[in-house]
Amino acid sequence: MPAEPPLRGVISVGTDLFADAVAAQGVAVTRVDWRPPAGGDPEVAALLARLWRDEVDLANRDALARLLAARPVLVDVRPALEVVPGMTRATVLHAGPPIAWERMSGPLRGAVVGALLYERLADTPEAAERLAASGTLGFEPCHHHAAVGPMAGVLTASMPVWVVEDRAHGNRAYATLNEGLGKVLRYGAHSADVLGRLRWMEEALGPALGQALRDLGGLDVRALIAQAVQMGDECHNRNRAASALLLRALAPPLAALDRPAAERARLLAVPGANDHFFLNVAMAACKAALDAAHGVPRSTLVTAMARNGTDFGIRVSGLGDRWFTAPAETPIGLYFAGFGAGDANPDIGDSAITETAGLGGFAMAGAPAIVQFVGGTPADALAATRLMYEITLGESDAYRLPALDFRGTPTGIDLRLVVQTGVLPQINTGIAHRAPGIGQIGAGLVKPPIECFEAALRAFGDA
Amino acid sequence: MPAEPPLRGVISVGTDLFADAVAAQGVAVTRVDWRPPAGGDPEVAALLARLWRDEVDLANRDALARLLAARPVLVDVRPALEVVPGMTRATVLHAGPPIAWERMSGPLRGAVVGALLYERLADTPEAAERLAASGTLGFEPCHHHAAVGPMAGVLTASMPVWVVEDRAHGNRAYATLNEGLGKVLRYGAHSADVLGRLRWMEEALGPALGQALRDLGGLDVRALIAQAVQMGDECHNRNRAASALLLRALAPPLAALDRPAAERARLLAVPGANDHFFLNVAMAACKAALDAAHGVPRSTLVTAMARNGTDFGIRVSGLGDRWFTAPAETPIGLYFAGFGAGDANPDIGDSAITETAGLGGFAMAGAPAIVQFVGGTPADALAATRLMYEITLGESDAYRLPALDFRGTPTGIDLRLVVQTGVLPQINTGIAHRAPGIGQIGAGLVKPPIECFEAALRAFGDA
Repeated sequence: MPAEPPLRGVISVGTDLFADAVAAQGVAVTRVDWRPPAGGDPEVAALLARLWRDEVDLANRDALARLLAARPVLVDVRPALEVVPGMTRATVLHAGPPIAWERMSGPLRGAVVGALLYERLADTPEAAERLAASGTLGFEPCHHHAAVGPMAGVLTASMPVWVVEDRAHGNRAYATLNEGLGKVLRYGAHSADVLGRLRWMEEALGPALGQALRDLGGLDVRALIAQAVQMGDECHNRNRAASALLLRALAPPLAALDRPAAERARLLAVPGANDHFFLNVAMAACKAALDAAHGVPRSTLVTAMARNGTDFGIRVSGLGDRWFTAPAETPIGLYFAGFGAGDANPDIGDSAITETAGLGGFAMAGAPAIVQFVGGTPADALAATRLMYEITLGESDAYRLPALDFRGTPTGIDLRLVVQTGVLPQINTGIAHRAPGIGQIGAGLVKPPIECFEAALRAFGDA
Repeated sequence: MPAEPPLRGVISVGTDLFADAVAAQGVAVTRVDWRPPAGGDPEVAALLARLWRDEVDLANRDALARLLAARPVLVDVRPALEVVPGMTRATVLHAGPPIAWERMSGPLRGAVVGALLYERLADTPEAAERLAASGTLGFEPCHHHAAVGPMAGVLTASMPVWVVEDRAHGNRAYATLNEGLGKVLRYGAHSADVLGRLRWMEEALGPALGQALRDLGGLDVRALIAQAVQMGDECHNRNRAASALLLRALAPPLAALDRPAAERARLLAVPGANDHFFLNVAMAACKAALDAAHGVPRSTLVTAMARNGTDFGIRVSGLGDRWFTAPAETPIGLYFAGFGAGDANPDIGDSAITETAGLGGFAMAGAPAIVQFVGGTPADALAATRLMYEITLGESDAYRLPALDFRGTPTGIDLRLVVQTGVLPQINTGIAHRAPGIGQIGAGLVKPPIECFEAALRAFGDA
């Protein structure tokens, strides 16, 4: 029997106590960052153990395949009343999980007031607030109507919406047109210029975009996002490339419209001045793809992450239309001059649908310049994407990251992996002032509360 | 006196003989890749030694400052005859250093024939060849007329040219409009559709772009390139972002033009289908900036690298208007299906002006997706840019690379550093078929012959 070899090194898993003791004896230690599953909670760990089984894996394979197979095509722009399912003149859709007027945050209240003025359901902000509090309006999440909206996400009957059709599964999804930066309804502003812009979008821009898209026979959003991800966009907080590519495609039919010269110029100039013009299209495309993956029995795929400015909510493919909510966190990031963390509203908006579909924070490795906007370094952007592979079921075959040797973006959040690892989805987001009407005051990073995922896990236990 | 410490490791500089011998004795060796300056040529080394002095350093500081201070603004599109200095109806400008008809390569001859047909100076290709060989035409480099042209770079009186003005120094530079891919004049094609497109550019697109730019009051090209470098372009072989941003800026005034609807659409659709639409603008901007840095006595800054398909030539700031030439190399890269290295023409075009100004191959770290087009991996793209810092005098303060923590692109090639290190400028380029009229057959990487730089060094010795 050969002599025992001398101790050359140790791999230490878990707490530092043992590693420290070995290192103190001069032995090389490789420390492995390990935490007990489910944060060490035995009840949660037991629920989790029940979900690591073949039926769930098969269900997830099915749900992921549907998500990756989606072929979102931008086909039209139409008034919401004409196309959004279940829309009425008294419907007020909003971002995030369901919420009553009484619990709404400042920017969401401001946007509701603005929408009621815009729809001429009220004449003054005070009358709009009384109407909102009266209980006669139908407040519902955009997500309940195949729609999504950034920030406050308020969507009412007269607003024009992008229509995205998933050509692989036949379903459609909807999102408002992006208003640009500054004072805008989605951050709760409702001054005369905000309402005037909304009316121009309703009367001029929306019909023109709809005509242009019908002339083009639709636009392949998946191909467009695939290009943009190779051009520094993650299609949540950075949409410069995608917005320019979208406008480049729409420009010929827009220029050919039978409108006065100045109006033709404005139809190209207003979207051209907005680097987030594409954001709402990306959101509708992600919503269409995730709706196609929703409703697979036993699947633990997360199909929505959304915030209403008060609560963060998730939905899961195998858990029907239930929301699992917890109080929304406040983003950490960079503030515009004159503002700070004390001014920030808690996390708000349906735009985390991009992360849910493998973009946004999940694609940060492709958008290193975004760190100048949300804080951090390009290395942080690479690390953020790499970490997301730990909690996702697959990788996009369309959205490929040059900086990671063209690896596909991490796609399809698995509820089990989130709870097991404690690694939370990374969301890039704008930061709204907590008072209505002030608008965006910064941008940063935020994570969902783990409680949403634990609650969903318990729901599987009850099933 | 303490005892001599045991041999822990060796740093070995230069040839491998010593390193191999030490390594064979079990000692750790760090090998430093070192070569003797000037490839070990004592005459060249002596010339080089004379140029490492304060006066040259000061001259280079001045020339680099002028290069970096340039503020290229795209101000107009005009017929070449109206704006290009010294242009006549019998002038035929071409890419690269001077060359007579007899020594021109296939694609350049094809482009000359096409230009003579387009200008109606000849009725048939045969008549055009006879005219070209007659000695009555004025063949001159674009570079002698403040102009640059990609590939064959043929520029004649009726062609519309971009007008770029360096607002810091007041000089102007010119470049043709990009024709797109496929059969195009710049690759030596001259069929009826090629000439038809050129006429449409002369009669419709050029005047429309000129009007749009005058309406806008000019466009800041430096700011546009700075954005594009953060969006995956290196502005030589990849111009997708810059082309989209340029068209986005031009779209409103183009859409407002008093033209028929179908023509307005075409004015946006043709440039919109061309991902290299911006290339010629980038080239003119680089030419304007480098012309501003040219003519500084004693400066060893390289102010032009250009190829005519037969010879590669460089010009140097302190050496006046002389060219230093050597036979052009053939690029190494990826070929389109059905073509191979045997079909390739030697390196051709003025587009290496982008590398001369710190873009193209020098900015590859910002354009990792380009490796899918020219070969290699994203890591190669990073390495290419990093190596170029070895031979450049400074870094761009405008063009910043996210992948290198926003470091500016390596800018301002120093003739001394090239000869001293033997590191040659890295050029990204398209590959032309050696026969006229076939067009682009691939894209790849190429380097200038070292002889150009050694010849320029000798010229300093003669001065």
